[in-house]
Amino acid sequence: MENLSVLTGKYGDEGDQLIFKILNSGDYLDKISTSDIEEGYKKLLPKISKKALRYDLTVPFARFVVMNRNDITFPFKRYQIQPVWRSDRPQKGRYCEFYQCDADVIGTPSLLCEAEIIMMIHTVFKKLNFNDFLIKVNNRKILAGIAEVLGKKGSENDLCVAIDKLDKIGIEAVKKELLEKGFDVQALQLLEPFFQLEGSIENTLSSLKKLLISSATGLLGISELEQTLSILKLSEAHCPNIALDVTLARGLSYYTGAIFEVKATSVQMGSICGGGRYDNLTGVFGLPNMSGVGISFGIDRIYDVLDELNLFPVQPSNSSQLLCCAFDEASFNEALSMVTKCRAHGINSELYPETAKMKKQLSYADDKKIPYVVIIGENERLTKKYTLKNMQSGEQNSCSMDELLSILSAK
Amino acid sequence: MENLSVLTGKYGDEGDQLIFKILNSGDYLDKISTSDIEEGYKKLLPKISKKALRYDLTVPFARFVVMNRNDITFPFKRYQIQPVWRSDRPQKGRYCEFYQCDADVIGTPSLLCEAEIIMMIHTVFKKLNFNDFLIKVNNRKILAGIAEVLGKKGSENDLCVAIDKLDKIGIEAVKKELLEKGFDVQALQLLEPFFQLEGSIENTLSSLKKLLISSATGLLGISELEQTLSILKLSEAHCPNIALDVTLARGLSYYTGAIFEVKATSVQMGSICGGGRYDNLTGVFGLPNMSGVGISFGIDRIYDVLDELNLFPVQPSNSSQLLCCAFDEASFNEALSMVTKCRAHGINSELYPETAKMKKQLSYADDKKIPYVVIIGENERLTKKYTLKNMQSGEQNSCSMDELLSILSAK
Repeated sequence: MENLSVLTGKYGDEGDQLIFKILNSGDYLDKISTSDIEEGYKKLLPKISKKALRYDLTVPFARFVVMNRNDITFPFKRYQIQPVWRSDRPQKGRYCEFYQCDADVIGTPSLLCEAEIIMMIHTVFKKLNFNDFLIKVNNRKILAGIAEVLGKKGSENDLCVAIDKLDKIGIEAVKKELLEKGFDVQALQLLEPFFQLEGSIENTLSSLKKLLISSATGLLGISELEQTLSILKLSEAHCPNIALDVTLARGLSYYTGAIFEVKATSVQMGSICGGGRYDNLTGVFGLPNMSGVGISFGIDRIYDVLDELNLFPVQPSNSSQLLCCAFDEASFNEALSMVTKCRAHGINSELYPETAKMKKQLSYADDKKIPYVVIIGENERLTKKYTLKNMQSGEQNSCSMDELLSILSAK
Repeated sequence: MENLSVLTGKYGDEGDQLIFKILNSGDYLDKISTSDIEEGYKKLLPKISKKALRYDLTVPFARFVVMNRNDITFPFKRYQIQPVWRSDRPQKGRYCEFYQCDADVIGTPSLLCEAEIIMMIHTVFKKLNFNDFLIKVNNRKILAGIAEVLGKKGSENDLCVAIDKLDKIGIEAVKKELLEKGFDVQALQLLEPFFQLEGSIENTLSSLKKLLISSATGLLGISELEQTLSILKLSEAHCPNIALDVTLARGLSYYTGAIFEVKATSVQMGSICGGGRYDNLTGVFGLPNMSGVGISFGIDRIYDVLDELNLFPVQPSNSSQLLCCAFDEASFNEALSMVTKCRAHGINSELYPETAKMKKQLSYADDKKIPYVVIIGENERLTKKYTLKNMQSGEQNSCSMDELLSILSAK
């Protein structure tokens, strides 16, 4: 939760619409007059709602950094995993409530941070066994350079808004929108070569350098990207899944340098990570010139992608390995000390909580994919030999408590 | 986030007031007439707010169980760590937004679950190195029995609401409130002996058995507690910090059996855990007779307690062990491959992102409590002998890359 005023105006008009507002507690109509209401819902809003739900983690992070500037060691690195909310129509990959995992470094312009973000994305996805992804990179200064080459220096925001829709509306519609924004019809012919860049990232950069030769800002953007790639190389980092996409714009207006977006290549899904460098995000809260860069992992979308690719293990590593089944009260008491011993040996175990029928208890183990079941009835209790059943193979063994512990500890 | 209608009416009148309501998106005034507004804020509420923020995790859990009843294996165990919100005046130990960690078992009346909750609390706090706690237990059936003994069978809710305030208002005020609720002045004399029970939990239970001899429900509550204690004993669980507190009532009205509350004994703080058994929480959502029991850990309060007792480690186990400091560009490039090698050896390392002055880089390591710093300048780069500094002792060693790796890996 944040103060509504902290969030308003940071995400563009469309973003403001998507912020969930919280109604003031108690009698929210207390000081509201008829004329307040007649002014309509937009003007009434700040009078009946002072708080709102986080739209992302970046703006609250900037607010936090400014509030705690005197207690923070800069460059400040933080990660944060928390829910955010957007009042969107829910659909696959688009949820009203979802979790983001953000990592940012603020307080240094060093391009090492950009390189480490790229390495981090590779490390995270490698741990998840997920390889079918592509990191698209670009730089807002390259987009500023393109605007400059098109004769509209300073209009990179209009350019970004239009280019952002290229996939959806096509190049002609993009040009049309730019014409309406005051771009020159002749100049727009210069746009197409930018969209036709192909090949390796090194080749694209060298072609791009020729196209942007007249823009110092554009060349600076290229140089930043080159330096980032060079840091990756010197780090001996194996980061193969990177592509330069000159049409990558990102919606948020606070980016000023590198921008990133990660797409799953084998699953239909919006971007699963996004981020970039912001030179002055803390400025609106009163702390200017604090350059930072960050990335946001969209956890729910990554979950959806891994799920679709069957990348989750069948049995989570922390779930029960053993179910103890007792069939009468005396056996239940015996099972109690058995489950305690198993747990003390680090074997995740549970005891079926009732002395229910065998079938019911075994089907519980089956449904929960518990790999082993130990059966304790009168016989087992008296002989101290318990029946250990492998639920997958169906194999059954009679074993003592010590044997049971050593069999399961070995798994 | 939940539908407001899911939450309303589950937490009592005071609870309803504390639920944060979310304003409908877009033009929330669209279908609102002047007469709607004249009816006041309470009646207007459901017309301008359809959603609300979770007040706890238990009611959303019950909603989830009912919605997914056909896909769930019962008895169903789940844990859940998520934020909840209450529109309270913020103060120490009382936050508008805080995290709960809940564990519940639903679909069995087995008292094994009560015992396992008590064991779990001990296990969790042991892992946190926290011993100064007391688990207060009681049973709603004992409270029902007391109401019956006082001649007001079925009035245990009035009794709970009054007793819940005993600590704050004292016994005379509790009696006064009960008189107003229709309890008999003579009968209320029978109340005091319940408040004077002392000694071990076994002794308290045996005294209580005499006081409740005329109430079958009360005796059942005692028997449930005794069985729970017996399961703990048979489990050979070492759970010393338990006390029976007959005045423990818990605010929420859905409890029907065991109730739990955990207090820190050496820190001034509200309860840090709370829970109990509910026989019919899913009933309001259309699935009756589904008995469950659960516990909620109040994570922020536990954090506050651990913090006050200095139980957090000075250095988190996952923070950086090594800071690489470079003082010119060539050394920075050398440091890049060093930091990569260290990370590959499992040594959490960072590279100061700029070639800043030595003092600045060392004070960064100091502030972040990074125990080792490696210094790389021209000399070190040429001789391949790096200066490793222990930040706590100040000791410095000149060592090769391999020596550095083996020194730090050994830590």
